Amino acid sequence: MTQTETDLAQTVLATADALMPQAEQRWIDWLRIPSISAQPQHAADCRRAAQFVVDELAAMGFTASLRETAGHPAIVAHHPGPGPSAEAGRPHLLYYGHYDVQPADPIELWNSPPFEPTRTQGPHGDRIYARGAVDDKGQVAMWLGAFRAWHDATGALPCPVTVLIEGEEETGSANFKPFVKATKSELKADICIVSDTGMWDIDTPAIGTSLRGMAYMEVTLKGPSRDLHSGMYGGSALNPINALVTALGQLKDPQGRIQVPGFYDGVRDISSSKANQWAALGFSEANYLAAIGLSVPYGEADRGPLERLWARPTCDICGIWGGYQGPGTKTVIASEASAKVSFRLVPGQDPAKVEAGFKEFMAAHVPADATLEFSTFGLSSGLEMALDSPFMKAAQTALTEEYGKAAVLAGVGGSIPVVETIMTELGMDCILMGFGLDDDQVHSPNEKFEVTCFRRGLRSHVRLLGKMSK
Amino acid sequence: MTQTETDLAQTVLATADALMPQAEQRWIDWLRIPSISAQPQHAADCRRAAQFVVDELAAMGFTASLRETAGHPAIVAHHPGPGPSAEAGRPHLLYYGHYDVQPADPIELWNSPPFEPTRTQGPHGDRIYARGAVDDKGQVAMWLGAFRAWHDATGALPCPVTVLIEGEEETGSANFKPFVKATKSELKADICIVSDTGMWDIDTPAIGTSLRGMAYMEVTLKGPSRDLHSGMYGGSALNPINALVTALGQLKDPQGRIQVPGFYDGVRDISSSKANQWAALGFSEANYLAAIGLSVPYGEADRGPLERLWARPTCDICGIWGGYQGPGTKTVIASEASAKVSFRLVPGQDPAKVEAGFKEFMAAHVPADATLEFSTFGLSSGLEMALDSPFMKAAQTALTEEYGKAAVLAGVGGSIPVVETIMTELGMDCILMGFGLDDDQVHSPNEKFEVTCFRRGLRSHVRLLGKMSK
Repeated sequence: MTQTETDLAQTVLATADALMPQAEQRWIDWLRIPSISAQPQHAADCRRAAQFVVDELAAMGFTASLRETAGHPAIVAHHPGPGPSAEAGRPHLLYYGHYDVQPADPIELWNSPPFEPTRTQGPHGDRIYARGAVDDKGQVAMWLGAFRAWHDATGALPCPVTVLIEGEEETGSANFKPFVKATKSELKADICIVSDTGMWDIDTPAIGTSLRGMAYMEVTLKGPSRDLHSGMYGGSALNPINALVTALGQLKDPQGRIQVPGFYDGVRDISSSKANQWAALGFSEANYLAAIGLSVPYGEADRGPLERLWARPTCDICGIWGGYQGPGTKTVIASEASAKVSFRLVPGQDPAKVEAGFKEFMAAHVPADATLEFSTFGLSSGLEMALDSPFMKAAQTALTEEYGKAAVLAGVGGSIPVVETIMTELGMDCILMGFGLDDDQVHSPNEKFEVTCFRRGLRSHVRLLGKMSK
Repeated sequence: MTQTETDLAQTVLATADALMPQAEQRWIDWLRIPSISAQPQHAADCRRAAQFVVDELAAMGFTASLRETAGHPAIVAHHPGPGPSAEAGRPHLLYYGHYDVQPADPIELWNSPPFEPTRTQGPHGDRIYARGAVDDKGQVAMWLGAFRAWHDATGALPCPVTVLIEGEEETGSANFKPFVKATKSELKADICIVSDTGMWDIDTPAIGTSLRGMAYMEVTLKGPSRDLHSGMYGGSALNPINALVTALGQLKDPQGRIQVPGFYDGVRDISSSKANQWAALGFSEANYLAAIGLSVPYGEADRGPLERLWARPTCDICGIWGGYQGPGTKTVIASEASAKVSFRLVPGQDPAKVEAGFKEFMAAHVPADATLEFSTFGLSSGLEMALDSPFMKAAQTALTEEYGKAAVLAGVGGSIPVVETIMTELGMDCILMGFGLDDDQVHSPNEKFEVTCFRRGLRSHVRLLGKMSK
């Protein structure tokens, strides 16, 4: 970077700081829209949350529009960069994010209403509580704020930028993936930037080196044609709840190894160099668990803690229900019972094979006249990120400049379903540069985002854009 | 019975037939009151349903009153019979029943609103659909109708009668049992009559020879201090749903034998004479199951069908819940999960021991840092009825006269918690003379009672009272 470019970056950073109150207000206003993609009654809210960003992008010189999909609308926007004279040799960036959020259930555990963003003082300064505070509205609002700073400071962005935002990341992107494929020609870029992951700790940035994929299925086990009196029929009639727990209870062996047929096919052990690198991070699983009231690791007994979180597949039942759930007693054999089962996958596993394996497993573990019905909500593969590109170096430099220390290269336990599509269909690498913290309560009641993370994340995005101007 | 007494019975039966429309109307009016004992919001309805009967009993010459308990109120009422001159040698009867009903959930499966009694034509003539249609308002309304017929035809009942009705049978009678003990001196009688069981089929009456008892418990398994993102924490943090299904899934071995420690202590095999008697009934489990859409018996593999229904203990999970139950996906590790577990018990089992055994079983089958919380909603023993009393003979004769065939002596798979208290504390036998059918959908959506069962049941009660006048 030349002296002039450094001066430019400093100018834009100063503008970003000056605009910070407005950036935070935009973020907070966006959080007020309950864009829960899983719940049909929030479809209009999803559209409203999308339009909110379209308007914001248009105000910064983007050609921005809502795009219909078979599900919630997507957003595509283009900014030409500084103009043809400056553009030669400047990379074209694709920013991906999502405006949809997880359901807020269980609502009663929130300390403030999930869609009334609440600012309170925490140990690291102010924080904002709201569903989506960090995932992913807060993170998207950071790079939108960085765009605004460049726009206001220089009249343009320093390089051509395409924005791609979806409304069903939290439900598996089933309709968004075909949209991306169909829109391929319009989404050409050199690199994709994604802010939907976390930092190592509040002072230490991180870049994600891998993502877990997912197979998420709902299973319903049906038995008798109606609910039954447990006294009249108990001992003769199939109880779907008993049958369901008996089957699901065998999903793992006592060592935590998942029993779905073929589940571990393609799963690779981590290299010894990676094992050493992770060991050097000094991760304390005891502290990690203590923060959530636990003490005993739960997972494969013969694997290390970061390996279990970043490089091993999992099976978590995310929901279960059947029969009477009210106060007191109802002595009933329910006619059916259901569960939502999520498998996090690692590179090498075939999600379709896991889906088929789960169906096979269930069929093999239920009584003869139980009927099984399945819904699949999302299948995505585990992914490894490229670490040696000039963009990755630029991101590392931007973070080092902002935080005064190098970013940790960290596996990511979560999943971003469409990243696979971006990598394979659009043929570009992704940089996972996110600013969440472990205690942000993502997907939980009382989700929050630290204002300091928001501000330094926004500044990091300003810096990263600055690296693209040379 | 003398000729005069036969004439008298015929007169009262004719009165009963003439009053049948009013008896049915009273029954239907009573069904409109949603007296769901399990749900606190229906406490006032429970009291209203109780007062309804108090008023009815008072109108027939009973000294009747609501009695407070620590739960829903009970009803105690006394009728002196025909007066001191006729009373010598006439037995004193205690009628027991309950005005509370099961919750109506799942409401959406009802074809008509559960508390708007709906009369429709079925294969056996009219039937009334409503929660409580048979259990136990319909059955109590029968003997109330029989009292009315005796009262209107003769000006009195043929023998002294005490009525004892409770409002928490469906929740285990925890507050009613101490009330009965405390009211012991007022409840003296020679025999207790209970209509809360079923017929063999629509043409064949039955008398219950045994009742299963119950231990009903709710268990909550707590893990992390809050809901967690299944990607960030999956592979490290205890998942309470996985842990709960793993434990509950081991409650039975593959042969259906219940694994709670000490569970079968005291359980006796049925005698060969009883086995032969039951075999002679020609019960078709295939037909029994086909009527509810099933084909494969579910229970202890090495026991006969009526033995499993009448003489073996069971374990049925009546409800389970945890995590996200809405549409689509939420990728969450819930902080807790719960289940309601019901054990039906047979004579010889100690309910308190089953309760302790279940707690021990759960503690032994959950991970080290899972926390378990238990609530016990009802403990009652399995019971055998005395078959050789003159009252039992009178009941058998009454049923034979009404139906033209002998009553089947049948085990009862269900439980009536307070019967144990009546037998042990009040020191009297009970006659289980009920008129429900297997397909009445007791405890299920679309509970119904056949009007023909109601009418002939009422007439049977008129006849039984007639046997007490000599």
